[in-house]
Amino acid sequence: MNPAYPTRRAILSMIGATAGASAMYAAMTSLGHAAESYYEGPIRLEGDPKGARVLILGAGLAGMTAALELRKAGYQVEILEYREKAGGRCWTLHAGDSFTELGGATQKVDFAEGNYINPGPWRIPYNHRAVLDYCKTLGVELEPFNQVNHNALLHASDAFGGKPQRFREVDTDYRGNISELLAKAAQSGALDQQLSAADKEALMASLKSYGALDDEFNYEKSLHTSEYRGYAKWPAGGVTARPEPSDLLDFGQILQSKLWNNLNTGNLTEFQTTMFQPKGGMDRIAAAFQREVGDLITFNAKVTQIKQDDSGVTVTYIPSTGEGQPQTRQADWCICTIPFSVLSQIETDLSPEMQSVVDSMPYAGAVKFGLEFKRRFWEEDEAIYGGISYTDLPITLISYPSTGYHKPGPAVLLGGYSWGATAQEFTAMSPEDRVKWALEYGARIHPQYRDEFKTGVSVVWHRVPWVLGCYGLWREKDKNYDTATKIDGRIMMAGEHVSYVPAWQEGAITSALDAISRLHDRVING
Amino acid sequence: MNPAYPTRRAILSMIGATAGASAMYAAMTSLGHAAESYYEGPIRLEGDPKGARVLILGAGLAGMTAALELRKAGYQVEILEYREKAGGRCWTLHAGDSFTELGGATQKVDFAEGNYINPGPWRIPYNHRAVLDYCKTLGVELEPFNQVNHNALLHASDAFGGKPQRFREVDTDYRGNISELLAKAAQSGALDQQLSAADKEALMASLKSYGALDDEFNYEKSLHTSEYRGYAKWPAGGVTARPEPSDLLDFGQILQSKLWNNLNTGNLTEFQTTMFQPKGGMDRIAAAFQREVGDLITFNAKVTQIKQDDSGVTVTYIPSTGEGQPQTRQADWCICTIPFSVLSQIETDLSPEMQSVVDSMPYAGAVKFGLEFKRRFWEEDEAIYGGISYTDLPITLISYPSTGYHKPGPAVLLGGYSWGATAQEFTAMSPEDRVKWALEYGARIHPQYRDEFKTGVSVVWHRVPWVLGCYGLWREKDKNYDTATKIDGRIMMAGEHVSYVPAWQEGAITSALDAISRLHDRVING
Repeated sequence: MNPAYPTRRAILSMIGATAGASAMYAAMTSLGHAAESYYEGPIRLEGDPKGARVLILGAGLAGMTAALELRKAGYQVEILEYREKAGGRCWTLHAGDSFTELGGATQKVDFAEGNYINPGPWRIPYNHRAVLDYCKTLGVELEPFNQVNHNALLHASDAFGGKPQRFREVDTDYRGNISELLAKAAQSGALDQQLSAADKEALMASLKSYGALDDEFNYEKSLHTSEYRGYAKWPAGGVTARPEPSDLLDFGQILQSKLWNNLNTGNLTEFQTTMFQPKGGMDRIAAAFQREVGDLITFNAKVTQIKQDDSGVTVTYIPSTGEGQPQTRQADWCICTIPFSVLSQIETDLSPEMQSVVDSMPYAGAVKFGLEFKRRFWEEDEAIYGGISYTDLPITLISYPSTGYHKPGPAVLLGGYSWGATAQEFTAMSPEDRVKWALEYGARIHPQYRDEFKTGVSVVWHRVPWVLGCYGLWREKDKNYDTATKIDGRIMMAGEHVSYVPAWQEGAITSALDAISRLHDRVING
Repeated sequence: MNPAYPTRRAILSMIGATAGASAMYAAMTSLGHAAESYYEGPIRLEGDPKGARVLILGAGLAGMTAALELRKAGYQVEILEYREKAGGRCWTLHAGDSFTELGGATQKVDFAEGNYINPGPWRIPYNHRAVLDYCKTLGVELEPFNQVNHNALLHASDAFGGKPQRFREVDTDYRGNISELLAKAAQSGALDQQLSAADKEALMASLKSYGALDDEFNYEKSLHTSEYRGYAKWPAGGVTARPEPSDLLDFGQILQSKLWNNLNTGNLTEFQTTMFQPKGGMDRIAAAFQREVGDLITFNAKVTQIKQDDSGVTVTYIPSTGEGQPQTRQADWCICTIPFSVLSQIETDLSPEMQSVVDSMPYAGAVKFGLEFKRRFWEEDEAIYGGISYTDLPITLISYPSTGYHKPGPAVLLGGYSWGATAQEFTAMSPEDRVKWALEYGARIHPQYRDEFKTGVSVVWHRVPWVLGCYGLWREKDKNYDTATKIDGRIMMAGEHVSYVPAWQEGAITSALDAISRLHDRVING
């Protein structure tokens, strides 16, 4: 179970080798992550902008990052924001909130006090260095977000009689079977052209470890394989404590079920451990930024026109209700974080090239469900703490809360998160029907849904008035990306859509940092 | 990246199939974990024991579990404990503590206020249902413990020039290479005897997903493989944001390095997600039990003799200092949780069979290091949040704290955890030398050790006076286990050593539950 430990002789020889080792230490450079990162800590904007005025459109994370850093560098900054609060898609629906979607349907969030759901971003990877650094600097408390849960479920409607399987069972059996197949192929000489004899020997030893194979390189029902996939009877203390091995799943059925689709998902850099979420909801990040730059924001301001000339920009806006007198703001420069889905409907005098990029960007659809249940049946009945179960049903996944483990009383899980055509179907339904179907589907995975359900909300992003979609989809990104990022007269774009980390807060923040550093260079150096 | 979503037609057909689905729902039984667990919730001891007296030896988790449940069931309970506090190996060294080991060396824990290390158990798997249930019932707040960290390191002294590699790189490259080898073997017909054509096709599709292979089933340097192993230049926002793929490690070197030794470790049921640790240290569990049964405990009591006859047990003890008058306690029954390593040195009149098992159990050695550094350089410099780095050096591993992420100021990591011969070597050293060597070795993985170190402690379990080892190692368990668990006259054994979950708190607690349920049956039914 643990790697072999060095012998006494090996240890003494290591201890004896200090002199040489010291030389090695001195030669070693830091393993610092910075070397491979695009983000090397807080931005530094050197030089005096002499009171240059910047108008920022949108108080999401991109807009507020720009505002925070530009003011610090000596700019005069203002922000116009359509909504009544800051954050944009960095958004949490809390108990007591209500939300009106395009089409007029209003949902009241009827969760128990303290419960919430993040309809937008909901997790932060360890490699999103800019988001994490702002969280640290602004005092946003983080807690771990669980992505992979070995005890969560994989479900295919037409496999294993529709019965969900534990991730650990599918994962172990898949790994065991492919390890056995490859070890046997190596044994039979089928890899002799690709591998040296020494590498073949090492490969077989590694497969035995990786696949939990026995001494004959077979993947078999045994206490050894049960150590990974789980037991028929788990080990415990006392007289009846002896463990019993579990039956293996049929490998052919695993292959045909496509349950392997999500075995590697958690290994994506975006989903690897360690992931985080802010304690209390993703909007704690928005609130932290708003504490810094809230005084710069004009809320409930719907931009209707963006004009520019050689001397500056003029932006016209009306109250978000649509009623009231137009007002204008003028500045030397404009950072526009309005999603292109909305910007394409606003009168501007952007260059034709920029306008063409703005007009050509569709926005992805997505739906998310927050379902509240009377108790944490997934923890109590099924020992699932956080993490994600996957299904081929239209809800795509169920994610259990990564916080409040063991807490009594009602709790909220993410009852579905779907994209594309599936999201379109949900978008066409009323909020009531959406939740009804999320429950129907979810009950095929967790029958407790039927007795334990309390209340639910859904957000379909194509109906969110201030973004009209979940995130920007590029057509011909290679061709158009440079146009979108350039300084267009006196206007610059920023936001997740102007990044290679689309749909993530990291894209929004690093896009803003990039935009303001180039703007600052222009202001200082002309 | 996400599984294909159903088409519109598929969704409508699912929605249309409700009637049939309802029937299916009704037929589905709960997926409840209880069915596959040995622990089905709180123990129920029915029937009146009529004031029977039970003397419990040892106030570790086994002893306190027995005391808690037996008193609840109507027994008169007393506990004798060698130490000045409860918990046994459920133990945390906090700032300000001091600890004297066998041989007389005393270590003062010089950590900053609030910092600690768990020298004994330090993590709780989701499948340790009894420990988790007591935590829930007794109000012990839990937080996630990170085992696998994709951004942590794998280190072999003689591979890759001694440079540690990221787990994600070794893991992705190993999986990619074996997937490619197996896909190519399948393509060449080498598996045609084992797999049907349909399964072979599904296998190849699965390997493409599992190994991040390209359309020709090659594992190559690309943005696609970098999505898993990490990038040479990570994606971000703005003009210079385009990601660049990372170079792959040489597969032959991976194979020869044996870095694959720990790729599957985190898939063991004992280490799978979700794992937990109590907030503030493992001894929060001991403290919670002590709140319940502390009034039953006589502390500083060193048992010197255990006698029994047909009517009961008589236990003699002296003050733990060794000085003072012997005292005795009598009871109808005795639950003895004293480790066999210590019990074998106590005068008893156990049956010869039981005494032989007690005398024949060696205890495993182990060493753990708690090292405090001035700052969380592993988070700040290297983006490692919790989890474990492995090495072939005598420290075996480094585990980063799973709590207090981003907290400024000094922090404590587990600077080594070794077993067997390696632990013996450390056991022979003075506490100062142990820490010195832990630093020397650790600096080969994290050069920051040299500048950032503040203070360190070590616990070598063979020198812990009240257990003389880490956990019981069975010789001929199949032959002797039943003897150790039986009611020996009026005495029963309990503890991790009398379980199939050795070295874990779950073994201690379930062993105690098993013992008292059988004792109760004897008391009630004779």
